[in-house]
Amino acid sequence: MKAITLTDSQDPTSLALAETPTPELRDGEVLVKVHAAGVNRGDLLQAKGHYPPPPGASEIIGLECSGVIEDPGTTDRDRGEKVACLLAGGGYADYVAVPEGQLLPIPEGYSFTEAASIVEVACTVWSNLGMLAGLKEGQTVLIHGGAGGIGTFAIQLCKQLGANVAVTAGTSEKLETCRELGADILINYREQDFSEELKGRCDVILDIMGAKYLRQNLRSLAEDGQLIIIGLQGGVKTEINLGALLPRRLSVRGTTLRARSVEGKAEVVRSTAEHVWPLLADARISHHIHTVLPLSEAAQAHALLGSGEVTGKIVLEVDA
Amino acid sequence: MKAITLTDSQDPTSLALAETPTPELRDGEVLVKVHAAGVNRGDLLQAKGHYPPPPGASEIIGLECSGVIEDPGTTDRDRGEKVACLLAGGGYADYVAVPEGQLLPIPEGYSFTEAASIVEVACTVWSNLGMLAGLKEGQTVLIHGGAGGIGTFAIQLCKQLGANVAVTAGTSEKLETCRELGADILINYREQDFSEELKGRCDVILDIMGAKYLRQNLRSLAEDGQLIIIGLQGGVKTEINLGALLPRRLSVRGTTLRARSVEGKAEVVRSTAEHVWPLLADARISHHIHTVLPLSEAAQAHALLGSGEVTGKIVLEVDA
Ligand SMILES: NC(=O)c1ccc[n+]([C@@H]2O[C@H](COP(=O)([O-])OP(=O)(O)OC[C@H]3O[C@@H](n4cnc5c(N)ncnc54)[C@H](OP(=O)(O)O)[C@@H]3O)[C@@H](O)[C@H]2O)c1
Ligand SMILES: NC(=O)c1ccc[n+]([C@@H]2O[C@H](COP(=O)([O-])OP(=O)(O)OC[C@H]3O[C@@H](n4cnc5c(N)ncnc54)[C@H](OP(=O)(O)O)[C@@H]3O)[C@@H](O)[C@H]2O)c1
Repeated sequence: MKAITLTDSQDPTSLALAETPTPELRDGEVLVKVHAAGVNRGDLLQAKGHYPPPPGASEIIGLECSGVIEDPGTTDRDRGEKVACLLAGGGYADYVAVPEGQLLPIPEGYSFTEAASIVEVACTVWSNLGMLAGLKEGQTVLIHGGAGGIGTFAIQLCKQLGANVAVTAGTSEKLETCRELGADILINYREQDFSEELKGRCDVILDIMGAKYLRQNLRSLAEDGQLIIIGLQGGVKTEINLGALLPRRLSVRGTTLRARSVEGKAEVVRSTAEHVWPLLADARISHHIHTVLPLSEAAQAHALLGSGEVTGKIVLEVDA
Repeated sequence: MKAITLTDSQDPTSLALAETPTPELRDGEVLVKVHAAGVNRGDLLQAKGHYPPPPGASEIIGLECSGVIEDPGTTDRDRGEKVACLLAGGGYADYVAVPEGQLLPIPEGYSFTEAASIVEVACTVWSNLGMLAGLKEGQTVLIHGGAGGIGTFAIQLCKQLGANVAVTAGTSEKLETCRELGADILINYREQDFSEELKGRCDVILDIMGAKYLRQNLRSLAEDGQLIIIGLQGGVKTEINLGALLPRRLSVRGTTLRARSVEGKAEVVRSTAEHVWPLLADARISHHIHTVLPLSEAAQAHALLGSGEVTGKIVLEVDA
């Protein structure tokens, strides 16, 4: 089969299609013929060598895809079944081996391309804001990077949960997109200190900046507030004032979806299918695709996402 | 009435009985004639000026007591009812005003003195390990300072919840007490690095050291592990490596009981009465009193607790 590989392991931009062995199935896995694969910021990190796949996972880039079951392996699935897949890796390829627990139905009314754009963000956002934080109606949530892949989805999910949604973004155009998706409080992080605007008001923060925003995030939390860190774009190490946590009963929590076990991913997928998929079917939450490119242009897709010019998601389509 | 006050505001050891006004009742408060008051480490901090009472609370030291309702105020309580009380302050006195939600029954079979020794630790430990962390059967919990007031209670509660209990303490005698109370893993913090022993094994840590132990505590946590900080004896500021949180999905949480609102304290008291009081009634959890002194000897009580020689709790009795 063909898959995207680094032609020069030292050059993260050297992504090109190359012949590689079709994955062998392990017990409980199905072989999926990929139709479309979503692009995530984690993929850019992996190309740079900073985000290696967990032990046992494919070395090929790609955290989500959609397609058709080619070989059901030891499972009871049917050959030809259309599926969306959460992956530990391997999506940028003609075929990928997927543990059965990581299969989702294609959301009602969605194309393969649309389905591939939604799996990773839906599972990430639901596992953090729904399953972990238990975000409730009437609470205030801050979503950093509201116009990104994660952000465009998170805004809509939080509105469906009845939350008051604050976002940060880097331009007024991106903030306008956030507003259209339902965001209530818009903060341009290049011009404003979000913690001035939100001091003591946020019940939950979905953070992607890590060290750089820790102090301001803690300042923005209300009593019993939870800071949930899923990205470290602003660094990993910084000073923490633990004295700030106790009187307001704050929590600092970090998660990654990719590092979860096969069982852990299956639990997230099950809960996401139950709670989020119905909201996709009747379009209470919409996908937000910025650009579609052929898989062979993965390098261009990465350059585009890296440029910071993207609102929402980029999807790669595998040629028929 | 008489209450313990600082005769020299600059000298934390200058604690003595002095004439002070009997507290005035606010709506929803009862006046309790104090029979016994528990001594807590927070009291030592308050005498030093480091732990001021929350706005509106009594300036008098004392976070828990037992006694008899002298004036039910606007509540439906009966004059003469025996009660145990969680306080925001005011326990080291002949009388204290207590919001009705902070009243508990005297546990079955308990004397006033015994009841005064158990309220603050029971509410603190249950609110953190039960209500917040949701400690479950089969999980491993680390309790720092297992032989202290909080520790001696926490060990027993955790065993009742079916947890595997690790503790730290500073001497082998104290560790022996922890063992008798049910602790499974004993670590002398003066001789061993607890994070070497417990690396990756703890589902929950009840921490009282703060900054000094942050790195080792994070190292000791298992996947989905929660570090709950309730004391800052080892300082407030330190470096945190947020990168350590994400792959194992760790949480760092801090709480103080005293800073909770009247409603928040009532919620803790209600849940503690429901879940913990039955365990006291049939002695599945025992109080652990080190010494009883008259209220007039509060200064000696503080010196004793400060010496580090105490195992369990000190209680002050008010002369009849
Ligand atoms: N832990 C997990 O399981 C998990 C899963 C998926 C994603 N993630 C992480 O989540 C983050 C977003 O992923 P993505 O796929 O949505 O990437 P993306 O579409 O490239 O989004 C990146 C976002 O970062 C924002 N940003 C950059 N600098 C910022 C700043 N100083 N303040 C606030 N926002 C800033 C950008 O906002 P502007 O465009 O407005 O500048 C953009 O919205 C990444 O860090 C990724 O690694 C984690
Ligand atoms: N946040 C809240 O709501 C809340 C409520 C109550 C108490 N607390 C806090 O909880 C802590 C304990 O309170 P307490 O009333 O139980 O006080 P305590 O009886 O005086 O206990 C203090 C404990 O600290 C331990 N300790 C000292 N240095 C240590 C170290 N390096 N490593 C491990 N343990 C160490 C002592 O162990 P050894 O005796 O073995 O040296 C002792 O068990 C205090 O910090 C207090 O402020 C917080």
